Amino acid sequence: MGAGTASLRDVAELAGVSITTVSHVLNDVPGKRIAAKTRQRVRSAAAQLEYRPNKLAQGLRSQRSYSLGFVSDLVATTPYAVRMVLGAQEAAANLGYLLFLVTSGGDQDLEAQQLRALLDRQVDGLLYASMFHRVVEPPALLEAAPVVLLNARCADGRYSSVLPDETGGAWAAVEELARQGHKRIGFLHNELDIPARSLRMRGYQEALAAHGIDFDPELVWCGEDAPGGYAAARELLDRPECPTALFCFTDRMAMGAYQAAQELGLRIPHDLSIVGFDDQEVVSAGLRPGLTTMALPHYEMGRWAVTELMKRIDAGSDVPPTHALLDCPLVHRESVAAPREAR
Amino acid sequence: MGAGTASLRDVAELAGVSITTVSHVLNDVPGKRIAAKTRQRVRSAAAQLEYRPNKLAQGLRSQRSYSLGFVSDLVATTPYAVRMVLGAQEAAANLGYLLFLVTSGGDQDLEAQQLRALLDRQVDGLLYASMFHRVVEPPALLEAAPVVLLNARCADGRYSSVLPDETGGAWAAVEELARQGHKRIGFLHNELDIPARSLRMRGYQEALAAHGIDFDPELVWCGEDAPGGYAAARELLDRPECPTALFCFTDRMAMGAYQAAQELGLRIPHDLSIVGFDDQEVVSAGLRPGLTTMALPHYEMGRWAVTELMKRIDAGSDVPPTHALLDCPLVHRESVAAPREAR
Repeated sequence: MGAGTASLRDVAELAGVSITTVSHVLNDVPGKRIAAKTRQRVRSAAAQLEYRPNKLAQGLRSQRSYSLGFVSDLVATTPYAVRMVLGAQEAAANLGYLLFLVTSGGDQDLEAQQLRALLDRQVDGLLYASMFHRVVEPPALLEAAPVVLLNARCADGRYSSVLPDETGGAWAAVEELARQGHKRIGFLHNELDIPARSLRMRGYQEALAAHGIDFDPELVWCGEDAPGGYAAARELLDRPECPTALFCFTDRMAMGAYQAAQELGLRIPHDLSIVGFDDQEVVSAGLRPGLTTMALPHYEMGRWAVTELMKRIDAGSDVPPTHALLDCPLVHRESVAAPREAR
Repeated sequence: MGAGTASLRDVAELAGVSITTVSHVLNDVPGKRIAAKTRQRVRSAAAQLEYRPNKLAQGLRSQRSYSLGFVSDLVATTPYAVRMVLGAQEAAANLGYLLFLVTSGGDQDLEAQQLRALLDRQVDGLLYASMFHRVVEPPALLEAAPVVLLNARCADGRYSSVLPDETGGAWAAVEELARQGHKRIGFLHNELDIPARSLRMRGYQEALAAHGIDFDPELVWCGEDAPGGYAAARELLDRPECPTALFCFTDRMAMGAYQAAQELGLRIPHDLSIVGFDDQEVVSAGLRPGLTTMALPHYEMGRWAVTELMKRIDAGSDVPPTHALLDCPLVHRESVAAPREAR
């Protein structure tokens, strides 16, 4: 008999007691008078047969399935965000919960179908995750279970949410450059209308202001991914009064900036300092020299979301929602130095 | 009342019939004489209340939980392999199944604990996945349910398995270079003792032989990731009789080869052709020029594994295992051209 396939009846037969007695002993049902010796015999038999209770049946009794749904939009296209899944999954496992993973690809009908499938399986709660920081319109089906938004928030703040501190991250990136003495700090900015766009712009401007540097819109250029970063960096670096440092919206854009610097004969960090965002390690650790960048706290966000979801499962829906911003820590590598004029 | 929270009793009350009648109608129980009008009334009431059957209770009756376990070792460290999860999840969703995702991080005790948790929830089958192609020793607990190995195989071939065709992929990569006229094709090889190491070496040697090129061990150099690829490429390219083309074990190593070529003033593909492996897009599409590389069929492998698992769930354990090798297709970008001497 394979591990985990013994039934209550098998345990009862081996222990020489009734199925009811086995059930009472193994479920610690209070108020039952069963001799210590009998209890011992039942437990030994269960251990010997590697008896595992049927959690489906247990779920029906306790009204808990000990499972959570992790509903995400686009897990495949931003693979580094799998650390959110991992953080959530490890936090859930520590509490005896398992995670159902479903991905809608952004299709609302498919999402509704998947949410119904999760609710059919009586998940105890839902993590509603976006693979990049978004403001979402939560589907009506979310009302059927406790919910935490992960890397997302809703406009009315009805659901608890956890997000990276985009403004703080951008602030720290620019601060790292300014405190080395850089005054002309370019920003390779994102062109998509996503929350991180304005939030990181605010961090960039506030850090400049804190160092008495005037904001110069001429030093901001938009693009996307490595090719966009390359084109934006060429645009800024070809000028006579070119920046001595670049803050890049993503590590991928920084990869393009490295390519532009190389073509122009600018050495990093001697002639040009660069700070990225994401700490997408295949890029940030793979570039030469290694890229100093801001890490996204995806793993920690996944953990936070499960902890918050558990609170809401235990306490019910009366608890007011919590909105968390987690730090984006600076990861030091070799792409930042003082500007030549400051040496 | 939220969607999906109505009970059988609610439907019965609204339809004005007994709970038993509702159950017979909604479950299409054969041999019950119920008037068409009554059936209609029950279905309307169920639709109006958005009644969803309790799948936990259904699972107890049908002996199916309509859930699968996806057990993986290291999902976080090779994020591009999430496409296996996605392929499996989409194939499962098409069949009305959901996927539990657990990750052991390679810890055997944790893995056993997670397998027990999945078996407790009566998963109908298990996908046992490795994030890179491995020969695994399947844990004993796998015997308790139908199993398919994903990106892995076991030494005795007991379980069905699906793997990328590493030899065919390496063959096609070298073929792409040889048919352009390259004769001195270096191989930036992996130093870890994993199955892909010898399988790709075989493909490299067989493709050379097919073009009448002698295998020269001096043209093979080992390393890992971008820094290892950089060092290996410097080693091969600094020689007087340096290769005109490089086949790289990973896109990350190819990224290092680009850095070495740049330092040596070699233009890609004019002076040096490069083919990678993985099609890790952040690298392959981010490099300048774009990297021609072999794609790993992770998504298709995930789908194949679920289809095979379903066959085994439906047919029982008597069906002999199947072992599939899926093609690694060539992804053309701009890093390959004819060698200068052949122009």
